[in-house]
Amino acid sequence: MSLTKAILDLRAILGKENVVTAKEDLLCYSFDATAGMPEHLPDVLVTPLSVKQVAEVVKVANRYKLPVYPRGSGTNLSGGTVPIRGGIVLSLLKMNKILEVDPENFVAIVQPGVIIQTLNTTVAAYGLIYPPDPGSMATATMGGSVAECSGGLRGLKYGVTRDYVMGLEVVLANGDVVRFGGKTVKNVTAYDMVRLFTGSEGTLGIITEIIVRLIPAPEARKTMLASFKDLTSAGNSILGIIQSKVIPATMEIMDRVTMETVENHAHVGLPTGAEAILLVEVDGIPEVVRREAATVRKVITRNGGTVKAAADDRERDQLWAARRAALPALAQKRPTTILEDATVPRSKITDMLLAIQDIGRRYKLTIGAFGHAGDGNLHPTILTDARDSEEMERVHQAVDEIFKAALAMGGTLSGEHGIGMAKARYLPWEFGEKGVQLLQKIKEALDPGCILNPGKLIPRGEGQV
Amino acid sequence: MSLTKAILDLRAILGKENVVTAKEDLLCYSFDATAGMPEHLPDVLVTPLSVKQVAEVVKVANRYKLPVYPRGSGTNLSGGTVPIRGGIVLSLLKMNKILEVDPENFVAIVQPGVIIQTLNTTVAAYGLIYPPDPGSMATATMGGSVAECSGGLRGLKYGVTRDYVMGLEVVLANGDVVRFGGKTVKNVTAYDMVRLFTGSEGTLGIITEIIVRLIPAPEARKTMLASFKDLTSAGNSILGIIQSKVIPATMEIMDRVTMETVENHAHVGLPTGAEAILLVEVDGIPEVVRREAATVRKVITRNGGTVKAAADDRERDQLWAARRAALPALAQKRPTTILEDATVPRSKITDMLLAIQDIGRRYKLTIGAFGHAGDGNLHPTILTDARDSEEMERVHQAVDEIFKAALAMGGTLSGEHGIGMAKARYLPWEFGEKGVQLLQKIKEALDPGCILNPGKLIPRGEGQV
Repeated sequence: MSLTKAILDLRAILGKENVVTAKEDLLCYSFDATAGMPEHLPDVLVTPLSVKQVAEVVKVANRYKLPVYPRGSGTNLSGGTVPIRGGIVLSLLKMNKILEVDPENFVAIVQPGVIIQTLNTTVAAYGLIYPPDPGSMATATMGGSVAECSGGLRGLKYGVTRDYVMGLEVVLANGDVVRFGGKTVKNVTAYDMVRLFTGSEGTLGIITEIIVRLIPAPEARKTMLASFKDLTSAGNSILGIIQSKVIPATMEIMDRVTMETVENHAHVGLPTGAEAILLVEVDGIPEVVRREAATVRKVITRNGGTVKAAADDRERDQLWAARRAALPALAQKRPTTILEDATVPRSKITDMLLAIQDIGRRYKLTIGAFGHAGDGNLHPTILTDARDSEEMERVHQAVDEIFKAALAMGGTLSGEHGIGMAKARYLPWEFGEKGVQLLQKIKEALDPGCILNPGKLIPRGEGQV
Repeated sequence: MSLTKAILDLRAILGKENVVTAKEDLLCYSFDATAGMPEHLPDVLVTPLSVKQVAEVVKVANRYKLPVYPRGSGTNLSGGTVPIRGGIVLSLLKMNKILEVDPENFVAIVQPGVIIQTLNTTVAAYGLIYPPDPGSMATATMGGSVAECSGGLRGLKYGVTRDYVMGLEVVLANGDVVRFGGKTVKNVTAYDMVRLFTGSEGTLGIITEIIVRLIPAPEARKTMLASFKDLTSAGNSILGIIQSKVIPATMEIMDRVTMETVENHAHVGLPTGAEAILLVEVDGIPEVVRREAATVRKVITRNGGTVKAAADDRERDQLWAARRAALPALAQKRPTTILEDATVPRSKITDMLLAIQDIGRRYKLTIGAFGHAGDGNLHPTILTDARDSEEMERVHQAVDEIFKAALAMGGTLSGEHGIGMAKARYLPWEFGEKGVQLLQKIKEALDPGCILNPGKLIPRGEGQV
């Protein structure tokens, strides 16, 4: 049997200890952090230790026509790592070295298994930061984060993962190892391969080394909590702050449903009577922080909100812990949490919040909304129960309507979670048939046998095995 | 004859006035701003007025197997717009409308023929800027600039074109019209098509609409001129400034050859006795500018340089005019100016400057070096005479050595000018054979007939007509 032969080949390459086939061990690789996704057992789990081994595994996969599912910590929220067609799960967790921190060029070179937070802790010693900060940064890997092009709370001021990836080493579907980019701030040599692979969700190649840009850590920061009697005032404040030419490091919103849930869960003194709160943090040199904080306060007050500034680091940490508790707190209320990341232009944030409320009402669903208000990246979160098929039908319809609303406002299906399995069927709504055909052509050109993460990103079509 | 038929078809689509075939009119489309490139007459010049017309032209090109050479103002420096295989030059200069300035979302939507400076003048009324500022910004078009992924003087702090393109409308090689991205700050929906087409040099599609991000204009700025007795002190100052966590908006270097040429040309009082000068500009709110200027001054003095700050706008403008005169001033000295943009990691800037000096000495050539020191993006400029074949032989060898030196230092072939015809043959040095094969696969997938800007970017191979 060819699977048995493939496993023998894999053992010869990786050693017995790095090839796992026991069902009980494979079980936790049959799903990822995404709720409501189909699950599937892989045939085998491999944990290579070098790019050479990754390339050899890919060659075995080609030989036996087995899918390869690259995986970091599996924290993605689009079903991106589920081995939906079986085959090989290729875990990069053992390739977890920080290869270099170069403080002269503000650059770090890491293997894909490095945890984002570990990188940040390491570069902090040089007064530097790696800005992308997805909610999962304490467990998510750099490889997964680059493959998904993660966003995070600081995206408004500092941008997202693609803005920090300077170079990549990638194993292609045919086992070729290629390298692009490097330590230079500017690079326009040939097509932008660094950014084609960043966010390609493991469907075009397997990332085996990453060169990232670092920036100086801000010297000071100020965190403020603003509460509002209605969504519109919160939305107008968001716009007003940006119009005043202040770009906060973070500007997060929570609606009443989310906030009350968090408060019941965490008891940090959130103003539960309010209809919405904003959490705003400005950073930079102290003079800038003082000035920008004053502007933020003025704009919020003018819009009828009340502002409270964190007096010290303890209060600041408490506020951010509350924000980071939004998803886990919501998730406790019902058995299933469907988290989306429909994103709209900043000017449409109020419209989108109101649309989500309306959709929740019409489909009789509890939908909490929170997220990165400054960049229009909301997280409408439907609390439901996957075992209740009648309710799930309404959930699917509501999700459809959320995406339709976002696209009608000039938005996008995904601000930071990617497409994966969760949103592939919506892709033609945003890209059109011709746009999807273009994606398929690229996939076919780079992975003609469709062995890399099949069943993801590209809607099922001729190009998809 | 099929060309005659094609021209009839083009006239039917565009009207007689937008289809030019007179040789005297075609002559100025046979070359571009790049020196030392082969020239070639196109068969016909078309100036479409709409995306629909562009798509129709591409369909005609397919029907008659004619190459299509998209063109803005032709200011590129890699031979990117030369119609080296004849056929159709498709000028986008008549599609030159600013379609929208959206001050709420800090976004502008433009047609490809809009001049970069025109966009900046327009958005200035809203207190916003479009940061990419290639030397040619007064004549270069947005379409050309996105197709080439232009850099510029402000790249160090503000990034390059790819950091500002949020969305594109593109006509593909088969005439399909596709759109990606939009006004949202975050977007990870499917492969990063916006950045694949940005910098693709017209070889994958024709850009017909561009959505760009704008940022608030800095409130204040300070420009300083520093002079040094040797290159190493200048290089150490560049590193020292960045190590102090100051990221200037611009940090430009000129070596002695360049500076003396500029001074003889422009008489602005540059310190011609010095071995190198740095032009540094910091910007931001006044408190930041004050503080950062003090740091810059301290670092330069510590490294043995002398600093002079521009007292007023007039002096500032004079300094920048001197910098912008570097290339034209050098170009006056000899009949032919070969301008390169080999780029190294910032920490290698001194090594690279010394390597260029050494190469100039060994090949008995006058090479001026200037450029964007803060981001390692140098412009070694060889002054020569294309009619002197013996000297040109030495020029080609020197250019080879410059690229080898840059790559050996972890640099790249092109920081901001692109590959075009000028550097295609060097591509395997940076990408390797397998990397080049990957580029060819993408080109073949998107343009199987190789009708879009053939003869550019991709080294000649099976994939290239």
